[in-house]
Amino acid sequence: MDSFVAVPNGSDFPLNNLPFGACKFKSDVDQKTRLCVAIGEHVVDLGQLQAAGCFTGPILSQTDCFTKATLNGFMGLGKPAWQEARATLTRLLSSGEGLLRDNVALREAAIVPQAEVEMQLPASIGDYTDFYTSKHHAFNCGSMFRDPAAALAPNWLHLPVGYHGRCSSIVPSGRGVRRPWGQMLPLSASSPVEGPCQAVDFELEMACIMGSGNELGSPVSADEASSAIFGLLLLNDWSARDIQKWEMAPLGPFNGKNWATQVSPWIVTLDALEPFRCEAAAQDPPVLPYLQESSRHTWDVALSASITPAGAAVETTVTRTNLKHLYWTFQQMVAHHTAGGCNLNPGDLLGSGTVSGPEDTERGCLLELTWGGKQKVALAAGPDGGVVERVYLADGDEVVFRARCEGGPGGVPGIGFGECRGKLLPCGYSKR
Amino acid sequence: MDSFVAVPNGSDFPLNNLPFGACKFKSDVDQKTRLCVAIGEHVVDLGQLQAAGCFTGPILSQTDCFTKATLNGFMGLGKPAWQEARATLTRLLSSGEGLLRDNVALREAAIVPQAEVEMQLPASIGDYTDFYTSKHHAFNCGSMFRDPAAALAPNWLHLPVGYHGRCSSIVPSGRGVRRPWGQMLPLSASSPVEGPCQAVDFELEMACIMGSGNELGSPVSADEASSAIFGLLLLNDWSARDIQKWEMAPLGPFNGKNWATQVSPWIVTLDALEPFRCEAAAQDPPVLPYLQESSRHTWDVALSASITPAGAAVETTVTRTNLKHLYWTFQQMVAHHTAGGCNLNPGDLLGSGTVSGPEDTERGCLLELTWGGKQKVALAAGPDGGVVERVYLADGDEVVFRARCEGGPGGVPGIGFGECRGKLLPCGYSKR
Ligand SMILES: [Ca+2]
Ligand SMILES: [Ca+2]
Ligand SMILES: [Mg+2]
Ligand SMILES: [Mg+2]
Ligand code: NI
Repeated sequence: MDSFVAVPNGSDFPLNNLPFGACKFKSDVDQKTRLCVAIGEHVVDLGQLQAAGCFTGPILSQTDCFTKATLNGFMGLGKPAWQEARATLTRLLSSGEGLLRDNVALREAAIVPQAEVEMQLPASIGDYTDFYTSKHHAFNCGSMFRDPAAALAPNWLHLPVGYHGRCSSIVPSGRGVRRPWGQMLPLSASSPVEGPCQAVDFELEMACIMGSGNELGSPVSADEASSAIFGLLLLNDWSARDIQKWEMAPLGPFNGKNWATQVSPWIVTLDALEPFRCEAAAQDPPVLPYLQESSRHTWDVALSASITPAGAAVETTVTRTNLKHLYWTFQQMVAHHTAGGCNLNPGDLLGSGTVSGPEDTERGCLLELTWGGKQKVALAAGPDGGVVERVYLADGDEVVFRARCEGGPGGVPGIGFGECRGKLLPCGYSKR
Repeated sequence: MDSFVAVPNGSDFPLNNLPFGACKFKSDVDQKTRLCVAIGEHVVDLGQLQAAGCFTGPILSQTDCFTKATLNGFMGLGKPAWQEARATLTRLLSSGEGLLRDNVALREAAIVPQAEVEMQLPASIGDYTDFYTSKHHAFNCGSMFRDPAAALAPNWLHLPVGYHGRCSSIVPSGRGVRRPWGQMLPLSASSPVEGPCQAVDFELEMACIMGSGNELGSPVSADEASSAIFGLLLLNDWSARDIQKWEMAPLGPFNGKNWATQVSPWIVTLDALEPFRCEAAAQDPPVLPYLQESSRHTWDVALSASITPAGAAVETTVTRTNLKHLYWTFQQMVAHHTAGGCNLNPGDLLGSGTVSGPEDTERGCLLELTWGGKQKVALAAGPDGGVVERVYLADGDEVVFRARCEGGPGGVPGIGFGECRGKLLPCGYSKR
């Protein structure tokens, strides 16, 4: 099906995507936040459509959820509301439907070029959890820091290992992030020092956003999770490796991680991802009953990370991997997270952990790509063929993640996630 | 100075305390949340006082901060506003001041017995961090699980170790908490099992609530933290020791902790605590510059934990300890937390970690009191002198924490924190 809104070939946002986000119109005097979906190179302001009575279905005609400042209320309405919104928007935006197409005033007010808006965080995130679900990533890290013969921790094959993250420092794509100051133990030193982090890394992750929540004390099964997860997006778990290494035993990462986490602006719904569903990795040994799935699946999402080194005009793709490589599914993460009764709320963010694949070229962070600093990554420095090398990131380097689902069955157009982009700014404090 | 509101001898809430909280009046049809302070056995509804024009100072006369549903806005106004509120309320509630005392209608509407209100969480908590700042606790845990000769992790004396916690499951005092289900590795087993937690513990902690926040990328020094922290309260970091033990390497506690964290209802301000200020523990080796304090101090707060075992009518105090035993101060926790640029917001909660003292009777959790289950704790089962024994908590056991500052200089009345009380309910799921 085509839209009356132009969708360039290969766009991340054809009519079968319709990812949800939040934006501000650059032209708005009051800079209010507007909820929207993406189509081609435009955003569609859902609040204006709702105010104009375009959502005529049984659920969405009874609420003003799209006129609010966050998507959380809409997400909390549950999957029937999400599917009703998708059906209504698919119809409204299709070439054959005149209701919006022929209402010039509404169409021009509500459908705005992406260049004329500033994307915001796509949800109000009350709690953020980061998991560690790539076996390749866990094996690589365990091999570097412990012992290749016992690279995986004893619990790793039995549960999706995760830890609570910091919400306040989650920033949208496009925002610069500042190299952190911190405490670290220099190699061969006996006492720690403080100073700017010397090992700024990215972690290429995907994350899910919870739609439906659960009450405290009421676990969600993996099967139920399929209809509780609203959608997926990209996540850069910016990491300060030297700070992290010194602080993390025994209570886990803290200042190594909490200075910035960056997400892409668009939540691609599970309904849009449905044609790209695929089997998830086989699990051996079998998992405990609370982690079992009657229809174990993930999605075939090709991921990449690229770096434009400081001063360069071109980017170099440093890794290409795929969501399907993960050992644990998002549904299992939800089941584990809630197994003890922990309550998830609409808008909560669950990161997958670094998505690394089986090949050397599929490693999702510089720690792995450089094997702990032992081998450098070469980046194009300019159109003349010059090259710069990196172990970790330099001030001014810009990191961009992209994600695409290609080649749906039956000619379903491929869909994408937009970018998760951030530039590393110099540490703000030369001494303390 | 006395208040015209009766304050019983030994009350936690004399006129020099005035802790802040949030409550609902049981008689309210709309059950709206009201911001309040405690005095004697009453609460004072700040919204009604503000609406009546009682806050005549330069800051608070210009806002309607006390008519909101959370204290966060008031806290975000900063220390001058907190001090103005304290000065105004001290005057308004004093015996010699007629403005409120003689306004019968306002007085009866705004000053309500604590028995007629239900206390809520005292702030909207956007992020929660738990630290691990008692050297006695860290040493005891390290001795049990590792080696008494190397009980403290290498970083422990150099930074306040902490980890991010879960906000959604923070509940107010009085709420029941449900024994979690989870995954654990039985002793001498080679694979894990799932089932109800067999090792439910409390952790006796204090916490600070941030008043002023900081921008992402702008650290707060330990000295600045003194005026950024709004106040202190009690915190029970409910812990599932068997789940925690199996999950926590290498990324820290997760489901062992996220099923419930309980806080006392009243935030005692640093201004109220000022007469009870004392020196903090000496630190050796010296800390790095970013953790240094020009006026290193804590507060002399006596803490206790008591248990009323299931079916019993009386409680047994199982530990008595003191905030002053902590090795790291709240000011240092704030400085460390923000050192890399992490932003704290008004209402953010920073737990101290289990407060254990040097003596065996000063251990702040059952894990330590029973030395990992090796020695049982005896609890009075009834007025006839019967005794029951516990290693960990049984269904129906109720845990109560209390905190008091006694014997201020110059005859300042002692102040208290109210209770942090919670009963352990049975696991809700017999199988999955
Ligand atoms: Ca991560
Ligand atoms: Ca704790
Ligand atoms: Mg991060
Ligand atoms: Mg807890
Ligand atoms: Ni009365």
